[in-house]
Formats: sequence, C-alpha cells, structure tokens
Amino acid sequence: MSIKKSSAIWGGRFEEKPSDIMEQINASIDIDKRLHKQDIAGSKAHAEMLAAQGIISTEDNKAIQKGLDQIRDEIENGAFEFRTALEDIHMNIETRLKEIIGDAAGRLHTARSRNDQVATDFRLWVREACDILMEKLEIYQATLEKLSSQHEDTIMPGFTHLQVAQPVTLAWHLGAYREMAQRDKSRFEDCRKRLNECPLGAAALAGTGFSIDRAQTAKTLGFDKPTANTMDSVSARDFANEFLFACAQAGLHLSRLAEEIILWCAPQFGFVTLSDQWSTGSSIMPQKKNPDAAELVRGKTGRLNGNLITLMTVMKGLPLTYNKDQQEDKEPVFDSFDTLCLCLEAMTGMLSSATWHTDKMRKAAESGYATATELADWLVRELDLPFRDAHHITGQIVKLAEEKGCKLDDLPLEDMRAVDSRITEEIYTALNIESAVNSRL
Amino acid sequence: MSIKKSSAIWGGRFEEKPSDIMEQINASIDIDKRLHKQDIAGSKAHAEMLAAQGIISTEDNKAIQKGLDQIRDEIENGAFEFRTALEDIHMNIETRLKEIIGDAAGRLHTARSRNDQVATDFRLWVREACDILMEKLEIYQATLEKLSSQHEDTIMPGFTHLQVAQPVTLAWHLGAYREMAQRDKSRFEDCRKRLNECPLGAAALAGTGFSIDRAQTAKTLGFDKPTANTMDSVSARDFANEFLFACAQAGLHLSRLAEEIILWCAPQFGFVTLSDQWSTGSSIMPQKKNPDAAELVRGKTGRLNGNLITLMTVMKGLPLTYNKDQQEDKEPVFDSFDTLCLCLEAMTGMLSSATWHTDKMRKAAESGYATATELADWLVRELDLPFRDAHHITGQIVKLAEEKGCKLDDLPLEDMRAVDSRITEEIYTALNIESAVNSRL
Amino acid sequence: MSIKKSSAIWGGRFEEKPSDIMEQINASIDIDKRLHKQDIAGSKAHAEMLAAQGIISTEDNKAIQKGLDQIRDEIENGAFEFRTALEDIHMNIETRLKEIIGDAAGRLHTARSRNDQVATDFRLWVREACDILMEKLEIYQATLEKLSSQHEDTIMPGFTHLQVAQPVTLAWHLGAYREMAQRDKSRFEDCRKRLNECPLGAAALAGTGFSIDRAQTAKTLGFDKPTANTMDSVSARDFANEFLFACAQAGLHLSRLAEEIILWCAPQFGFVTLSDQWSTGSSIMPQKKNPDAAELVRGKTGRLNGNLITLMTVMKGLPLTYNKDQQEDKEPVFDSFDTLCLCLEAMTGMLSSATWHTDKMRKAAESGYATATELADWLVRELDLPFRDAHHITGQIVKLAEEKGCKLDDLPLEDMRAVDSRITEEIYTALNIESAVNSRL
Amino acid sequence: MSIKKSSAIWGGRFEEKPSDIMEQINASIDIDKRLHKQDIAGSKAHAEMLAAQGIISTEDNKAIQKGLDQIRDEIENGAFEFRTALEDIHMNIETRLKEIIGDAAGRLHTARSRNDQVATDFRLWVREACDILMEKLEIYQATLEKLSSQHEDTIMPGFTHLQVAQPVTLAWHLGAYREMAQRDKSRFEDCRKRLNECPLGAAALAGTGFSIDRAQTAKTLGFDKPTANTMDSVSARDFANEFLFACAQAGLHLSRLAEEIILWCAPQFGFVTLSDQWSTGSSIMPQKKNPDAAELVRGKTGRLNGNLITLMTVMKGLPLTYNKDQQEDKEPVFDSFDTLCLCLEAMTGMLSSATWHTDKMRKAAESGYATATELADWLVRELDLPFRDAHHITGQIVKLAEEKGCKLDDLPLEDMRAVDSRITEEIYTALNIESAVNSRL
Repeated sequence: MSIKKSSAIWGGRFEEKPSDIMEQINASIDIDKRLHKQDIAGSKAHAEMLAAQGIISTEDNKAIQKGLDQIRDEIENGAFEFRTALEDIHMNIETRLKEIIGDAAGRLHTARSRNDQVATDFRLWVREACDILMEKLEIYQATLEKLSSQHEDTIMPGFTHLQVAQPVTLAWHLGAYREMAQRDKSRFEDCRKRLNECPLGAAALAGTGFSIDRAQTAKTLGFDKPTANTMDSVSARDFANEFLFACAQAGLHLSRLAEEIILWCAPQFGFVTLSDQWSTGSSIMPQKKNPDAAELVRGKTGRLNGNLITLMTVMKGLPLTYNKDQQEDKEPVFDSFDTLCLCLEAMTGMLSSATWHTDKMRKAAESGYATATELADWLVRELDLPFRDAHHITGQIVKLAEEKGCKLDDLPLEDMRAVDSRITEEIYTALNIESAVNSRL
Repeated sequence: MSIKKSSAIWGGRFEEKPSDIMEQINASIDIDKRLHKQDIAGSKAHAEMLAAQGIISTEDNKAIQKGLDQIRDEIENGAFEFRTALEDIHMNIETRLKEIIGDAAGRLHTARSRNDQVATDFRLWVREACDILMEKLEIYQATLEKLSSQHEDTIMPGFTHLQVAQPVTLAWHLGAYREMAQRDKSRFEDCRKRLNECPLGAAALAGTGFSIDRAQTAKTLGFDKPTANTMDSVSARDFANEFLFACAQAGLHLSRLAEEIILWCAPQFGFVTLSDQWSTGSSIMPQKKNPDAAELVRGKTGRLNGNLITLMTVMKGLPLTYNKDQQEDKEPVFDSFDTLCLCLEAMTGMLSSATWHTDKMRKAAESGYATATELADWLVRELDLPFRDAHHITGQIVKLAEEKGCKLDDLPLEDMRAVDSRITEEIYTALNIESAVNSRL
Repeated sequence: MSIKKSSAIWGGRFEEKPSDIMEQINASIDIDKRLHKQDIAGSKAHAEMLAAQGIISTEDNKAIQKGLDQIRDEIENGAFEFRTALEDIHMNIETRLKEIIGDAAGRLHTARSRNDQVATDFRLWVREACDILMEKLEIYQATLEKLSSQHEDTIMPGFTHLQVAQPVTLAWHLGAYREMAQRDKSRFEDCRKRLNECPLGAAALAGTGFSIDRAQTAKTLGFDKPTANTMDSVSARDFANEFLFACAQAGLHLSRLAEEIILWCAPQFGFVTLSDQWSTGSSIMPQKKNPDAAELVRGKTGRLNGNLITLMTVMKGLPLTYNKDQQEDKEPVFDSFDTLCLCLEAMTGMLSSATWHTDKMRKAAESGYATATELADWLVRELDLPFRDAHHITGQIVKLAEEKGCKLDDLPLEDMRAVDSRITEEIYTALNIESAVNSRL
Repeated sequence: MSIKKSSAIWGGRFEEKPSDIMEQINASIDIDKRLHKQDIAGSKAHAEMLAAQGIISTEDNKAIQKGLDQIRDEIENGAFEFRTALEDIHMNIETRLKEIIGDAAGRLHTARSRNDQVATDFRLWVREACDILMEKLEIYQATLEKLSSQHEDTIMPGFTHLQVAQPVTLAWHLGAYREMAQRDKSRFEDCRKRLNECPLGAAALAGTGFSIDRAQTAKTLGFDKPTANTMDSVSARDFANEFLFACAQAGLHLSRLAEEIILWCAPQFGFVTLSDQWSTGSSIMPQKKNPDAAELVRGKTGRLNGNLITLMTVMKGLPLTYNKDQQEDKEPVFDSFDTLCLCLEAMTGMLSSATWHTDKMRKAAESGYATATELADWLVRELDLPFRDAHHITGQIVKLAEEKGCKLDDLPLEDMRAVDSRITEEIYTALNIESAVNSRL
C-alpha cells in the first residue's frame, strides 16, 4: 500500500508491516501535530544552514523553503491531511514535502535525525509556552492589583487554621496571591533560560560527520547557543519536567485561592458572589448557584500533579540515549499548558466580575476576638510585661468576653481591670479595628 | 440563542450567559460522551421504574423508551450531533429526547439528579471496563502459558541484581508473569464487586420524596443492590481510585516484562528478536531494529501512575457531597483503561510473534558460575557442613575458577580438593546444569 | 574488625570492606528491625520443617528453637543490641544465634535465602497490619454509629458545591463516612487474602534442591498455601503497593471528614467545638482555638499519597527477580501504617469528645432555600408538571424570596401564585423542613 | 504536671490537657530539632533588632544572646534534653532559655509568632541545603570530568533503544551526565535565590504593631531583603516544593546512570566492575557480586518522587494563611536532602573506584553495524544521493552483512557494489571506527 510504503522511512531491512496495535501504540501524530510550527521552523533553519555550508545546493534549499512555507499554510488553513500511518509530525511534513517538491525533499534530512529534530521542536514549543504563561500570569496579577487598589480599606478577618486571627484588608489578602504569582512567573523565566540551547546537530546521538554550523541554526531559532553534549541533547527531558513542575506549582497556588472563593461563596461566609457568567445552577435544586469555575480550578490541580508524576516516572532509570518511552513526554506537557492557561483565565475572569460583600467581611472581622493580639501587645508596650505574661492575661480577658457573649471592645474596663488592674482606658484605642489594621499593614 | 437557552436546565434564576472560558472549563461532553450507552441504559431503567410506581404515565414511559432507543442508534451510527453548549452527555441526550418526543422528555428527570445519574453511569462504565480488562488479562496469560509449554526445557540464566544467579527455564520465568497477571485480574474482580451497588435514587444528595423503587432500578441495571447512604452515593469516587490503582499495578507488572524484553533484544543479551510487526527502524541509522512496542509499554507506566495521582489529588479534602472538582474523575479513568488495553494487546502480540534464541540463553546460563549454589548445597548434603561454611568454601572455589578463567564444572577435582579435601567426583553431577534445574523447579 | 568479619556472610570472594557510605546506603537494620517478630517466627517454622524432613538433626532444631526464643525475649526486653554493620534484621538475628548456640546456627539457613526470608517476613507483617487497621476502622465506625444514633433528629444543611442544597440529619451525614470506612475495611480484607501465600522455599529465586515441605511451613505460619512460582515469590511487591493504596484511600476519606470538621469549627459555621484535648492555641493570638488534629489528619494524606508513589516508582521497570531497589519497600509501608493508625485514632478521639451545636446546624438548614427542591417536587406531584417546568417555576419563586429577603416558607401565597396560579396552601407542608427530611431519608 | 504546664504557651483559655494521641500527632520535635541552629540564629537576630529599636532593653538582649549561645552549645554537645511535651524546637529552646535567664526569656517572643519564626528557620535550612548540594554536585562533576579525561580514546557503543547505534567514547558518554549535573546545580541556585527573602516580622500573619526593623534582621541572617507580603510569608511553601523537585530531578538523572552501571556490570555487557567497597554478595549464591549501591541509587528515585508528591498534596487547596497541615513540610525536605546527599556520594564513590573494561566496550562497538550511518553519509557526500535514498541502500547492505554474518567493513567491495555500483574502495575509510568517532565528536 502506498501510504504504508512511503511511511517506512526506516524500513529498508523490514519485511513485515507493523501490526494494527503497533501502529496505534507507536503513532504520535494525534499528539505531536501541535509541534507543526516548530517543526517547520526547525527544518527551514536546518536547510538554510545546509545550503550555507554547501552541503545541499541553493536550488534545493529554495525548493525546500518554498515547500515548507506552503505546508505551513496548508496546516494553518486546515487543508493538510494528517496521516496516522506516517507516525509523527516529522514524517507527515517530509512526505508532503516530497509530494510538492520531489526528490529535493530527500536532502532535508541530511545531517540530522528525528532524535535531535524532535528535541529541538519540543524545546521551541516549551519556550513559547513559558512566554505565554508569563503573560497570562501578568494579566492575573494585574487583576489582583486592580482589585487590591479598590479594597485598600476593606477590612476582613485574616485566618489561621480557618479561625479568625487578626483583621486584615482584602487588598493585603489578595496581595499575597500577587506575590505567589510573581514567583510562579520567575520559575517559568528560569525554565525558559535553562532550556534555551539548541539540540540541532546532535543527530541520532553522536553528532554528524557533515561540516554543519550549529551556531547558525541555534541563532536562527533564537537559542542562546548549541547544546554542549550530543548524547545529552537527545536524551534530556528535564526541561519538560521543570516546566511540568512550574505548572503544577502555579496551579497549587490557584487551588488555594479557588478554595477561598468557594468558602467565601458559601452562605456561611457570604463574602463574595460570583457573576452568573462564572456560576452554574442545579438540575434538581432551583435555588442553587454554584461556584463551578472555582471548583474546577481547584480540581485541576489533580491533573497538574498527575502530569508531573507521569513524566517523572517515564524518565526513571532510562539508559542513554533516546528510548521510545520518551515519546510519552509531550502529552502531559501539552495538557498542563492548556490546563494552566484555562485556570488562569478562569480565575482572572471570576475575580474581575465578582461582587464583594464588604459589609459581611467587616462584620466577620469584628467577631472572633480578632484584636486580642493588639491587647497583648498593648500590655507589653505600655506595662512593659514580658510577652508571655501578656499572652496569659489576654487569654483570661478573652475568656471573660466569651462568657459574657460580647466583643472585646464592648467589655467594660472594670472587667479587664479585674484581671489586671494596670489596664487603662487607652486600651480601647488598641482594640479599635481600624487602628489595629493601620498599625500593622 | 436557542441552544444556549435550552442548555440552561438550571438557569431559572440566571441572568447572564456563561463566559466562553467558563463554557470551556465547565463542559465535559468531549469526555463524558463515552458514557452514552450507560446513560441511556440508566434512563431507560429509571423511566420503567417511574412508570411501574405510577409516577409517570405508561404512555410517557413508552415515548421515553422509544426516544432513548432512537438516540442510542443515532449515536452508534454517528448521526448524533454532540453540542458543547449542552455541557454534558446527560443534557445532550435529554435535549435530543425533547426534540424527538416533546414534553414527555421533561418527566424523565423526575426523582433524580445529575449527581446520582452520573454516579450510576460511571459505575456501569467502570464495571464493564473491569470485565474487559479481566478478559484481556486472560488472553495475555494464555499466551504466556502457551509459550511456557513450548519452553519447558529451554534453559536460561535466572538473574538477581541483573547478575546471573541460578539456571532456570524460560517456562518458569514466564510463569512468574502469569502469576502476577492472576493477581492483577483478581484485583479487577474485587474492584468490580465492591462498586456494584446502584446510586440511582440518591438524587442530588438526599434522596427524593417520590415513592421510587430503588431495588428495581438496581436489579434492571445488574447491580447487587442499591447503595446504603445517599450522601455517600453521590460523593464517593473510591471505586474509580481503586480501578486506577488496579490499572497502574497491572501496568507496573507489564513494565517489568517490557524491561526484560528490551534487555533481551540488546545484542549483548540476544535472547529474543521481535517480529518486524512489533519493531521500528531509525530515520538515520539503517541497521537499527528497535523494540519500540516494549519501550512504549514500559513508558506508559508513567501515565498510569499519573492518572492515579490525578484523582487521588482531586478528591483530597473535598467536603460532602458533590463538588464540581469531581468532574475531573472520568478522563484519567478512560485513559488508564485505554492505556492498559493497548499495553496488554501489544505485549500479547509481541510475545506470540517473537523468535527466541534458546542457544544464547543456554550459553548465558552456563557462564557466570550459575551452579555455585548447587556446589554449596552438595557440601551441606553430602559432607553435613553448616550452610554458612559451605558458602565460604564455595566462594573460594568460585574465585579459583575465575582466576583460571574456566567454568565451575571444568575446574579439575584436585583444585576443588585443595580447598576442601572431602570433595569427591560426584560433585560434577551437582554442577550439571540440567540436573541443577531439574532438582529445583 | 570482628563485627565486620562476621557480617560478611556473603563475603567469601571479597577482599575489600564496604566503604562507610556503602554501609550507610546499604544497611536497612534501622528500618527492618520492625520485622523481628516475623523473622523469628519464620525461622522457627523453617527449622521445624528442616528437622521434620531430616535435613537438620532434632538436636540442632531444638537448639535453634531455644536460641530464637531467647533472642525474641531479648528484643522485647530491649536487651538486644542491633548492629548496623550486620546490615539487616536477618543477619543481626543469625549472628546472635551463633553467639548463643554455636555452629548449629549455621544450619538454619539451609534451603533458604534472604530473598524468600524477607518476602515471608514482610507478608506476615503486612498481614498483621491489615488486621490491626481493620480493627481500628471498626472502632472508628462504631464511634460514627454511636454519634449517629444520638443525632437522628439533628437537622443540618446538606451541601453540594459547599452551597446549601437540601436539609439532612447529622446522623445521615455521618452515615456516609461509615459507608466509606466499610469499603476501606473490605479493601484491607482483600489485600490480606491475596497476599496470604507463603514464599518460603523459593530460596534465592529458583527453589532449592533439598527436599523441603513448603506446605508445612506455609501452614505453621498461617498462610493459605505456598506461592506457586519461585521467581515471582521473591520479586513481587504488589501486595505492598496494594496495602499502600488501601491506606491512601482510607486516608483520603478521613481527609474529607477532617476538612468538614475544620469548616464546622470556623466561627462562620460554628457547628462543632472540639474539646481542649484535641485543639491547640496560638503563641501570639490568645483568643485562638485551632482544630490542629483535624488539620494534621487532612495534611497526612500527603504522605500516604507520597508513600504510594514511592513504591510504585521503585518497582517500575525492574527485571526479575530480586533487585536491591526493593529494599526501599518497607519504609513507606511502615510509615503509611503508622500514619493511618494515628489518623484513625485521632479522628475517633475528636469525634467522641466534640460538642455539637445543633441549633446552629438547624438555623443554617433553614437558610439557603434548602427546601426549593420540595417545592419543585410538589409542583410535579400535585400539578402533574414535567420536572423541567417545575424547576423553572421554582427558580422564579426563589428569586422572589431572595428579593424580599425572606425564607421560602415565609413568602406569602399570593406571591407564589403570581408565578403560578395553581399553587395552593398545601405547599407550606412541603416547605416544612422536618417533613422534607422525613419524606426522604 | 509541670512540663505540661510550661508547654502550654498558648494555654491561657484551655482547661484540659491534650490527649496522648494528640500529643503524638501534634508534636514535631523529633523532626524539627534539625532546625536548632537556624532557630537560634533567627532568635539572636530578632533580639538584637528588638534592642536596637528600643523594644527590649540592652540588658535583656545581652541575657538572651548569652542564653541562646549556651543552648546552642548544649545541643551541639548532646547535653540538651528535647522534650516531646514541648511540641516543637521553638518551645524547647524558649523553655530552656527561661530556665537559664529567667523572665527576660519571655520578652524574646515580642513582635513575632511561631508562624514567621518557623518560616524563617525553614528557609535558612533549605538555603544551606542548596549550598551543600551544589557542592556535592560539583564533586560528582569533577569525578565525571576526571574519568572523561582518562577515557578520551575509549571507544564504546552509543545506544538508542538499548540497541547499538553509533560508536562514541566513554568520555563523551560521561560528559552527558556532567551536563545534566550542571543543570541540576543551576536549579538549586535558582531555588536558593528565589527563597532568599526574610519572613521575620510577618508575625502570625499580619505583621506587628511594634516598630520593628525588618531590613535589619533580614540583613543579619543573610537574606536579600524582607518578604513583601506578610500573609504570603507565613503560608508560602513553594520554596520547599521547588527544592523537592530539584532533588527529584537530580535523583532522576542519577537513576539513569545507575541503570547503566547495573547494565554494564551484567556479565552480558561486562563493561565495568565495581570495587568490593561498592558491591555485596549473596547469602546463598557464593559466586555473586552485586551492584547494590547502584541499585539503591536507582531505587531511591522512588522516595524523591514520593516526597515531592507528599508536599504537593499537602498544600493543595489550603486557604490562607497558616494551617497545621503545613507542619508536614519538613520531613520530606529533610529526607530528600539526606537521600540526594547519599546518592551523590555513593555515585561519586562507585565511579572513582570502578574498573573499566575498555576491551569489551571496544568489541561491543565493533559489533552491531554501528558505522552504518557513516556509510549512508558517505553515499550522500560522495555520490550526492538524497539522504533518504542513501538510507535505503545502506539498509540493503546491512542486510547482506547480516546474512553473511560479517561486520560491515569485512564485507567485500563487490557485494556492496552489487547493491550500488558507484561505491568505491574509499568507503572502507568511512567504515573505520576511529575515523567515524573522530569525524563527529
């Protein structure tokens, strides 16, 4: 069969065709067609260099460049027919190139192998993925900052152990997530920097005898330099693992904010209402308005962790250099990228369109004895008590307030003085929630 | 837009349409359309029961049954158009049902919720997946057994630490994998048994006020009985985790055999040659014949572990009952099922079509002093030495053979007697590789 | 050095002593000393069998039995000195046996290897761990059941998406966890059943030439039968993976209840107060009472997942039979057992000593339009509306109540009739929270 | 009980003592005592700053400094008694401080909380761990480089798919691992940089009303600056996750070299023999010499992956700010550090003391048609064939050599010319293994 034949680029010594299951387990085209842009860019740079070095003729190079441009257009226009029998993106493109420009296509694969080709394509792809995610993280940060600027004076309870701890502002609370995003972004930046070396020219594993110019292809493709060791070039996948970790960690941070949004949407908190755009209802309970988007962001941490473990498991104990196991590298990377993009966009969307119930936040901050620490600090500052003693005295006063069922600043002075007679009227300034917040943040 | 409107089955109170990103992150139809058979079966059983209980009329039931049959045919014939705006498989089917039978379709959802509906669909699906995998494991076992029966006398080295340890037969070696498959199968059997309770009737989380007959739907759908607690019914996913673990463990066993096939295909071992059907070549190195299928089976352990971690992470710390995070449950399960099916088929195919080089196995068994343990055992049995002493004496004899560069049974008697004078001619029987194997296995 | 020398039970051909780092990475005694009881039981059974088969003398057997009993006592009394240079529990015991009974100790290792010995010890240990965990799960279940019996009438909100969905009882809510624990228990039961075959007699990997009686040792040690394949016997660790999964899944269930306890302890919910025994305070905030125990139970899911991944990674792609990698099997198993024991005890303790604020639960159940589904169901039942239409009408009524800021059953009849004029006074019975709960659970 | 009482630094409002299980699940002293050096350094810096700001007196500061120095000495000399009832390292030290210097000890905790204290300690610890691991990676690299410099001319087969692909040198092969280590090192460097901000002063979560100087403490402790957001400061653990990933990835690289060493030690390869220092024997098979150290390095990948998943799971979905779950952060970090240290030392030791069998490597490189690619390249270069055609011709020639059972450069010219008549005598230069290697690497 013709397709079968043309596919067997490696088939010189082979007498039998692959079994159907083999074709199914071996073919990666459904996955790696996402590398088409990178594959074409890599091939164009390679052909240019081969021509510059006199390894192929100028005419062949021109034909190759034109053919590859045409293929890129075909793919972008949806006119390209991907064929499973051709295994992967590289062979799909090369086969089509042959149909378009004839025998010159056969010269493109001089001085390279699919091993260095795919390593190059994949690094280019991950590099762009880092760029896109850094951008999306910035948009998310900008949303947090805008919200913060609107809520500098919105007082809410700060929690530890999900217990009311001390009053803070919504601005300050959201600012914590801005910081996390900043570090998440810098991890993608580091990942991008570390991977930005060009494997092209490593060929199968050991370089090539042709007098190629690795510096040229590296430069054309925007890499800092060629990789130093050819065997490492075709077998390394730590850049992909690092990318998967950076995605998982960023997703983990989002899962924390998602959890908080879900809590805050619960009627018991009532701090926020998501817009209809970001909620769904129930097929059976007509009153429900569910924070589905936040729940999905939280849940998608699962696949980000899963993808990381997938590739960490794949690479365990693999001898050098390329092993087919490594073909399992792209699917988790593509999925983590898609997932994190979606989560960032969803989070950005949810935040910008939500309604914040500042009154409920304020009320919650006033309950729970959130200014008890200010009381203890006042005892240290004004009465020069060791902090540990101040802590004990405050504990007794809180207990008193609990028994009376009142807030700290509603407790009469005589009650406080019964615990420690040195306490004065000034204590009520310390217990004021605004002054508490202002003295600290 | 009409589709948008009809989709909003929960939309009574909602004023805004979901954002595009929300639709994208929320919709599960691309994944859960694989549940169509189960969803239709569940709906048919539910409608029958509603009619039997007098909750809907016989006419409505008839219309529903006919409509659902038609939808099943449409899906199987590829005539059904799945719509993302309709979110999931349940709404796609119900919407189509309304197009076909009109208002009666609206009565189908009486006394149930999507929460118990999807829990039922998913259990039905996993149940069938267990059945299919048990079958595929049996075919794989039969292949191992057939090969074993052909290689009862094929002597090969048994390894520990990848060092030659003692001679065994290929039959015995493959028999180890048969045992593993047996336990893998029984894990799917246990999983199937434990999940086989019907959640239908749990409704959203708390059952329904309609006088339904849960025993009837359970029976119709082949469940052992209805689940006991409605809140557990809609929130439990341990059956899916258990399935994912059973898949991962079976895959782990396959990864060990895959590793051995890869080793045995290396020219240094040369124990086996895979058929062309299960090998590939190199785009640059024309002499290569690569055990790609085995490498892929080994590599796919990664995604099986990853899928397990995905859902284990998703479910961590979720409060009762249903949370949208749980929508992330199906993709890993579908993927682990597909992956394990493919791996079992590939392994079965590789094994049945491989060529075994029994001469090289035999030769390898003869090297490496594989019968040293027989020597030590002979010293214990015939000279009544404590095993520890026999072990030391044998160590010295092996060292002597190493220095002379000869096999143990080529070492002259006087050399052995120089180490221990009680050793007699009979020792050579113990050192004979066939008798060694026959005395043990 | 004398200890070094006696340690080298395998040292016949070795000229150099292990390096310090090697001793450190290789020694497992700090971990596997937990197997002492099992190791001694296994050795006793093995010696009895050797004597019964005439492989060792009755006298030697007697000495061995007595010596091993003494060692067991020494270990239990803390009088036994474990030595790192002796690598593992097996050599520590055998070396001590030699000190006590002299040369006869050297006969104990006849017809076995450390490979089958440790496999036997480990299965015995995991089997007992299953038994203990099943017991602890039962105690936890009993606590849930007792609490449930006290709260049959305690009405609380049932949540989906952490939104109030329908009223349920605390008894019903806790009953869900009872069901989960039941399945968790049955997983340990299955695990125990599947592993209960005796590897003893597999020796290094290929059995032994001595005429041993594997059925006898299997029976003495309480196994159902000997394992079928010797190579599988020394290399299989799926029983340990299965145990780790069962622990992780049980821990996952506990993490869900832990999350709920944390939520319920938050002042916003206020459903429960943990006793002082199960709470801690803050070193800086005197008013805090933190649900630390619940948080730790939730957090410990991490190590249970981690331990599972540890061993799943270790076993990936290992060729047959025993590889030293497998020494990494015990630490995660011991840790998961300890962790799950602790979590079950902590959860049991927290639940039995907590104070439940049933008034706050009830109040929460009354808010959030939790009976909206009853309203929809009434429309279906009494007015014969298709459920989908009833759902839409209810949505509108809920919206009306929201606008008026009142509960559903406080909404005047005329308001409801403005939405659908067929609604009658009887609707208020359906909206009553007790009758709602009673009609369903 | 007195210890119990003094432990309850947060116990003002508490009436009951913690239960035994609570004490067991809550106490972290067995783990976090490894932070003692960091905790004391942090407290000293904090007290200095408090004095400089006039918040505590110079005398109190002097007493605190002296007391802390004494405690550090006590701990280093093993004279310090760690008490479980005092929960953690912070309270163990503070309690002892009170014993030594009296009430002034109570002033040390002014303007800080255990939340910012432990975050500071932990960052200091991880920072030093990064430094140590970078050093150990450098020693490992130096070992690789030294070996490489000795083996510039040692020809061995380069593998893909564990099939002989092209000849390379041992120097080049080891050079690949040097590159990996370089990236591993730079990941620790990035991790160190990103975490180097000082959380001290964040107090419980919201800073403090005392006029502290965060810049001073940050500088004293070698941090680049104080952290920007107090809530982020006490709740962030991404630095620990990043460290765990960097360890896991470095371990993954080691697992690949470990796998190769194990393969190369197998008699079938025979490329290397480990020294007795890094091998062990068998308790039953006297001839065995096992590469245990390499197997353990490979196996320990498991726990590195496991530790990563542990903390990634713990942090999922935690609301701000500190939750007790986070106490689970230190054990995996300590364990991954210890494990990676041990693995790097073991690998360094194994490599430097191994014996390399260069003859066997050379022989293996000559088999397997490793120069087939050179043949194809020659056809392209000399005959100007498109590479794809050259590949096909070479495939046919390899097949011929296989049939004749000879090497490529032993195949008579006429046989090659029968496949393509344009081939000349010069082809044999290309097929020479030295010239092949020299033309490429």
